[in-house]
Amino acid sequence: MTDRIAIGVDLGGTKIRVAAVTSKGEIIGSPVNIETEAHREKEIVENNIFRSIKEVLEREKLATKEILGIGIGSPGPLDLKTGTILNAPNLLSLNQYPLKKQVAERFSTPVFVENDGNCFALGEARFGCGKGASIVVGLTLGTGLGCGIVMDGKVYHGATGTAAEIWKTPYQEKRFEEIVSGKGVAEIYERKKAIKIDAKQVLERAVKGEVAALESWKEFGFHLGNVLAFIINLLDPDIIVLGGSISKAFNYFKENMETTFRMNVNPLPADHVKIKRSLLGSDAGLLGAAALCF
Amino acid sequence: MTDRIAIGVDLGGTKIRVAAVTSKGEIIGSPVNIETEAHREKEIVENNIFRSIKEVLEREKLATKEILGIGIGSPGPLDLKTGTILNAPNLLSLNQYPLKKQVAERFSTPVFVENDGNCFALGEARFGCGKGASIVVGLTLGTGLGCGIVMDGKVYHGATGTAAEIWKTPYQEKRFEEIVSGKGVAEIYERKKAIKIDAKQVLERAVKGEVAALESWKEFGFHLGNVLAFIINLLDPDIIVLGGSISKAFNYFKENMETTFRMNVNPLPADHVKIKRSLLGSDAGLLGAAALCF
Repeated sequence: MTDRIAIGVDLGGTKIRVAAVTSKGEIIGSPVNIETEAHREKEIVENNIFRSIKEVLEREKLATKEILGIGIGSPGPLDLKTGTILNAPNLLSLNQYPLKKQVAERFSTPVFVENDGNCFALGEARFGCGKGASIVVGLTLGTGLGCGIVMDGKVYHGATGTAAEIWKTPYQEKRFEEIVSGKGVAEIYERKKAIKIDAKQVLERAVKGEVAALESWKEFGFHLGNVLAFIINLLDPDIIVLGGSISKAFNYFKENMETTFRMNVNPLPADHVKIKRSLLGSDAGLLGAAALCF
Repeated sequence: MTDRIAIGVDLGGTKIRVAAVTSKGEIIGSPVNIETEAHREKEIVENNIFRSIKEVLEREKLATKEILGIGIGSPGPLDLKTGTILNAPNLLSLNQYPLKKQVAERFSTPVFVENDGNCFALGEARFGCGKGASIVVGLTLGTGLGCGIVMDGKVYHGATGTAAEIWKTPYQEKRFEEIVSGKGVAEIYERKKAIKIDAKQVLERAVKGEVAALESWKEFGFHLGNVLAFIINLLDPDIIVLGGSISKAFNYFKENMETTFRMNVNPLPADHVKIKRSLLGSDAGLLGAAALCF
């Protein structure tokens, strides 16, 4: 039984979220959450990573030789061959940090490192609303715009391991990420009301029925619809799963998102593709990370 | 020896181009070209298809039982399961025409039907400048914008057979195809000089050194660069091959195309991906079509 357990680590710029996961995608106990303290020096961030893994192993009384390994989803860019973090904007003190090597040495177990967007997509493909689908795209709508592609249960990496890094794509004199993200919706709102608030607050105001906030989410839905059209036209996936903090506003941007992508996609794929909210929520990343070991 | 020969058919809106092809991608003799006469009734267009195939078989003294089959690249949209042409704008009289069934019945040999953009990409991947590459994207720049994706020597179809139909993607208040196409460059030129000429003439004027024509191709290069960025960011391919009549202007749009996609793509894939002009030229489509049989 214990040989079918892996540790999944969702390494974020704010939090590290870790759990022991069975090969069926069940989390044992509940995930451990530790602050990343990404602004502090390398040794402290590294120790936070080690500490979070150690806590799960000790709590669940797992010896590292009893687990399949440790899977880690990390912000990119990464060198996937060596499992090294390159100049990740959210983890600056871990610039050029050999994550895979260091964790493997510390815990004497196989370690797998993957881009966080890919882990989200893999988690949803294996255990979430992409289960049974052949081509799954995951989009994480948060501070930035993450993306991952899973084909037949495996992460699609492309030629250099950078497939699905769509955030940088030119869009309306800007880039996808500047518009289809928390920052983007905050800017849309600011243009309407000349007030700087964050995406979470724009959602709160929409829930209260404020017109400018409701309109902002509609406009966001239009832009997201264009991003979906771009993905569907090139990849023709079975399902696109939306995660990240911004996906909480789903009901407020859904209608415009749907209308827009349908206008810009052929009827056959438009009728086939499912656009769903993440089923696994904040666990998708660590479940996908654990799935790297199975 | 003869069991390694297939017939490749490039069925276009203007011409039908057919040849016998060896499994090494060698054309036996030279291709037969026949006018499609797409504006005429179904029976005439059908007869032109039959006639062009018959001519190659007779000229090369091939019995249909000696060949592997007939591969046909056709304008889309297609129903790939049945090999039926749906409402293809360039072949209106063949609306709902069961191409695969009709050709198979006429010649009593296996018939394979595929989207023309995919055939172009497959031809270049198997026998052209994509040889040896794992992820190949083909772009045909002509009246419209065609695209095909080949992964590990096979056409990537997506979930509904419509992958790579990027022409419809929203771009600058229009669609990719309206800007990155012959029509697009003609419009760019018209905005500069208030004269309506076609893309071929814009190229002729650029060759003569006319400033407005040279500037038009540079602007075209900028837009094409954005399309490349979109493809590279999502798919991270090894190579993108440019074909179609507009690719003849390669030297006039190349520089701006390069600068633009490099600005909008991460350094790793930007340095890895090759952007090449088609090596097979007007034979790429029929070679890819023949390759469907191998």
